[in-house]
Formats: sequence, C-alpha cells, structure tokens
Amino acid sequence: MRGGTVYGTGLGPGDPELMSVRADRLVRRTRHIAYFRKAGRAGRARGIVNGMLREDVVEFAMEYPVTTEIPLSDPRYNDILSAFYGDCVAHLKALVAAGEDVVVLCEGDPFFYGSFMHLYTRLRGEVPVQVVPAITGMSAAWTATGEPITWGDDVLSVLMATLPEDELAARMADADALVVMKIGRNMPRVRAALEKAGKLDRAWLVECASMDGQAVMKLTDADERVSPYFSIVMVHGQGRRP
Amino acid sequence: MRGGTVYGTGLGPGDPELMSVRADRLVRRTRHIAYFRKAGRAGRARGIVNGMLREDVVEFAMEYPVTTEIPLSDPRYNDILSAFYGDCVAHLKALVAAGEDVVVLCEGDPFFYGSFMHLYTRLRGEVPVQVVPAITGMSAAWTATGEPITWGDDVLSVLMATLPEDELAARMADADALVVMKIGRNMPRVRAALEKAGKLDRAWLVECASMDGQAVMKLTDADERVSPYFSIVMVHGQGRRP
Ligand SMILES: C[S@@+](CC[C@H](N)C(=O)[O-])C[C@H]1O[C@@H](n2cnc3c(N)ncnc32)[C@H](O)[C@@H]1O
Ligand SMILES: C[S@@+](CC[C@H](N)C(=O)[O-])C[C@H]1O[C@@H](n2cnc3c(N)ncnc32)[C@H](O)[C@@H]1O
Repeated sequence: MRGGTVYGTGLGPGDPELMSVRADRLVRRTRHIAYFRKAGRAGRARGIVNGMLREDVVEFAMEYPVTTEIPLSDPRYNDILSAFYGDCVAHLKALVAAGEDVVVLCEGDPFFYGSFMHLYTRLRGEVPVQVVPAITGMSAAWTATGEPITWGDDVLSVLMATLPEDELAARMADADALVVMKIGRNMPRVRAALEKAGKLDRAWLVECASMDGQAVMKLTDADERVSPYFSIVMVHGQGRRP
Repeated sequence: MRGGTVYGTGLGPGDPELMSVRADRLVRRTRHIAYFRKAGRAGRARGIVNGMLREDVVEFAMEYPVTTEIPLSDPRYNDILSAFYGDCVAHLKALVAAGEDVVVLCEGDPFFYGSFMHLYTRLRGEVPVQVVPAITGMSAAWTATGEPITWGDDVLSVLMATLPEDELAARMADADALVVMKIGRNMPRVRAALEKAGKLDRAWLVECASMDGQAVMKLTDADERVSPYFSIVMVHGQGRRP
C-alpha cells in the first residue's frame, strides 16, 4: 500500500480566488482535510474553503486547548500546547500510515509565522510532508491600501505587535517600510510605539485584507476602533524611484 | 463603449501552479498581455505563462532601454527610465481607451519591489487599474529550504543586496530572520556583511525558487558560485516555539 502525504497547504489571505492553482486542486480533490480552530468557532482557514470540499470529505478540526487563564510566560503554557500538537501529529501520522493524503489548511503562507510549523517540525522525517507556499496576509494588505510597500532599496521590517513597546519603537524608527502583525489587543502599544518613532501619521490599518469585512484606513482615523486579530498596521517605504 | 482595465497581475515565484486562481484566469482569458523584458531576452514573467495565452493574443513586450554604461547615480539614468515608463504607459492608456483590458505580467507580488509599481503610479487616476497580489519569491525560497522563516515574535528584515556593506552588516546583526534579495553581482558584499554580522554560517542560498534550475544550499557551500539575479540569501529565525 502506498503511504500518504501531509500537505501543509497555504490558502492565502482569505479570498478563495487568491489561493494558488495547486492549493485549489489539493483542497478540492483530497478527502482528509485538517485545520486548527478555536473551540466553538468554525475556523478561519476552514471558512476560506467553504463549498470547495469533496462530498465525502473527512474533516479533522484541531481545537486549540483553552489557555486564556495561563500567561504566555508560564512554562505550563508551552507544555499544554506541546501536548496538543503531539496529539494532532499522532492522528495525522495514523492517517498517512493508512495510505491517506491529508491537506492541512493554513492561513496565508505556512512558513511565515504559521501554526502549521508546529506540526511540521514534529512530522518531518517521520512521514512525507509537502508545503505549498501562499500569498501572505501582508501582501493582500498592502494591495488593499493601493500603495506599493517598498521601492528601490527600502528595508522592510516585519514586526509582531506582541513585542515590548520600546523595542517596537526602535525598530519602527529604523526601517523604511513596516508591517506590524498580531494587532488585536496590542493596538495601544503599536500606536504608542509609532508615535515615539515619529511614524504614526504615515501608518495605515488594514483589517481582514481580501476577506469579507475588509477595512482600510489611516491609523489616525481609527481612534477607539477595536481591530480584529486579522489586522495589519503598515507604513509604506518611500525609496528611490524613476 | 466600455473602457478597459489594466490588471497588474502577480504571477508568483515562477511555478505556474503557484499562480493564484485569479491570475490564472486573467492570463488565460485576456487578449492583451504586456510584460517587461531585457532587450534580446524572452522575458522571465512571459516565460511563466508559456502555453497559457489565447490563440489571438496581442503581446506588448516592454523592453528596458540599455543602461549598463550609465551608473545608477547619474541623473540621466532616471531620465531614461522615466521616459521609457512614460512610453509604456501611453501605449497601455491607448489600449484601455479603445475598450481593451490589459494584463501586465509581474514576477512575484507586484507591490513588493516590483517594476509594475512604476507603471502603476503613472496610470492610477487616469485609467482603471487593479492589482492582483501574488506569492513572493521569498515565500518560495524559504519553502524550498524546508525551514520556516519566522517563529513567535521573530523580527524579519528584508534587505536589498545593493545596500552598502556596513549598512547590510548592521541590519543583519539586528534582525532575527533575514531575507536578502537582488543578489547576483552583489554576492561578495552580502557574504562579507554576513560574516561581519556573525551569521554567515547560518545563511542559505536559494536560486530560482520554484523555477526550473532551483538550487538550495548553505551559503558556506557555495564558494565561487555565480548566482543568477533570481537568487535569495536568507537566515531563518529561531524564535520561541512550543
Ligand atoms: C499567526 S500570523 C499568520 C500569518 C500568515 N501565515 C500569513 O502568511 O499572513 C497571524 C497574523 O497575520 C496577519 N494576517 C494574516 N492574514 C491577514 C489578512 N487577510 N488581513 C489582515 N491581517 C492578516 C494578522 O496580523 C494576524 O494577526
Ligand atoms: C525586483 S525584485 C522583485 C520581487 C518580486 N516582486 C517578488 O514579489 O518576489 C527581484 C528579486 O526578487 C528575488 N526573487 C524573486 N523571485 C525569485 C525566485 N523565484 N527565486 C529566487 N529569487 C527570487 C531575487 O532576489 C530578485 O533579485
């Protein structure tokens, strides 16, 4: 019997038309479809492929253990997540051993801050794994602003809003073009850091790029606004151009 | 008569299967296809869509003026390029005025250091322009290494190899994960800067990611190798992971 393969399949930023031709085909033809989601939610990645799955699809929803009461710095946090990923991997390996291919749905590009990476490092060497790159959320976000992100030899820095405010501010001051991800509840810190770096007035906010509910605005026009997890703040580069 | 639209269409890193579903459809159904190329070459972007174009396709090859004898710092360099982009735009506008849609083929993502941006800034406000984001060369490159590029709150910096060596070295030392583009003849400088930053032994070289002739190696194994323009050097982040 032929063994199966796990396909870590990037779906892109949200619009199903922005999936790659390869991802589109894998999603439509593969019976076993796995994805992460928060308990009680439908799942973002799963939502992108609505209406595309086989009639006889077998879905494997990998539900994150609830960890809101444990701080990220607590070693138990890592232990719980690690056990969770281990369980997911055991199930995927069993499917592959039974000869099945499995598509793991990933938001954006799997190897760019993606949760699939935690399965990947546990699967590789054990079973065949292929990764399908995809359009990142940030590409959809800068496209939505209608402004190129980088020109000439602009330096682009990608920052997570979870960093400390001073580090954010220093790195924001230092780069020509900026992308800040994982906004959500970290917005006040992002705003303060941009102010310190003297770039608040040039910053854009893009919520849900290429998804239903996409919103694009100058950050200075977004006072008091509560942005979803799928939000990006960016400052465009101003490099040399003929 | 309905006016046309210019579609700045990202084709992704090179493998036609990594084009988006939208780009694939635009390329197959649109009669007028434009692309940049060097004089005497077939054109990289054009090569990606081989065999996909309509039988009655009308191609508009925008051939870069030869500028090798003029240094980048010479003001004439910008003047020549600017006149060239102006001519291209005049032709595209005439097509649109005649009611035609035009697909401009772009390598990777159009708004990420892409040459389409020079047409875009001259076209917008004048004729309808839509931009289709795409998988970047760097996404294909890190996928080809088989290692995720960023973890946790890693900072990613994207650098052009055209920067001065000291600036490259400082920025390389400062970032968690690194992508260096426009390698080609700048490789000796990139190598020296990585050495200064203490990261040479962790660097990877990816040539022609997802294209024919893809090559992936540790940079320290690439001594004396002459890499093509479509090469990326990268250092993967090592951030927090459960
Ligand atoms: C864990 S990272 C995953 C990134 C993803 N792998 C990618 O390639 O874009 C999640 C963050 O990506 C950003 N993001 C991803 N897709 C987005 C979209 N369509 N619109 C806005 N932000 C997005 C948000 O900042 C979000 O907090
Ligand atoms: C002018 S930039 C254009 C980038 C493009 N718009 C993108 O999104 O990737 C050209 C540089 O991109 C990098 N590049 C683009 N595609 C690549 C690929 N498939 N393999 C390796 N490098 C690539 C190379 O470093 C090249 O010098």
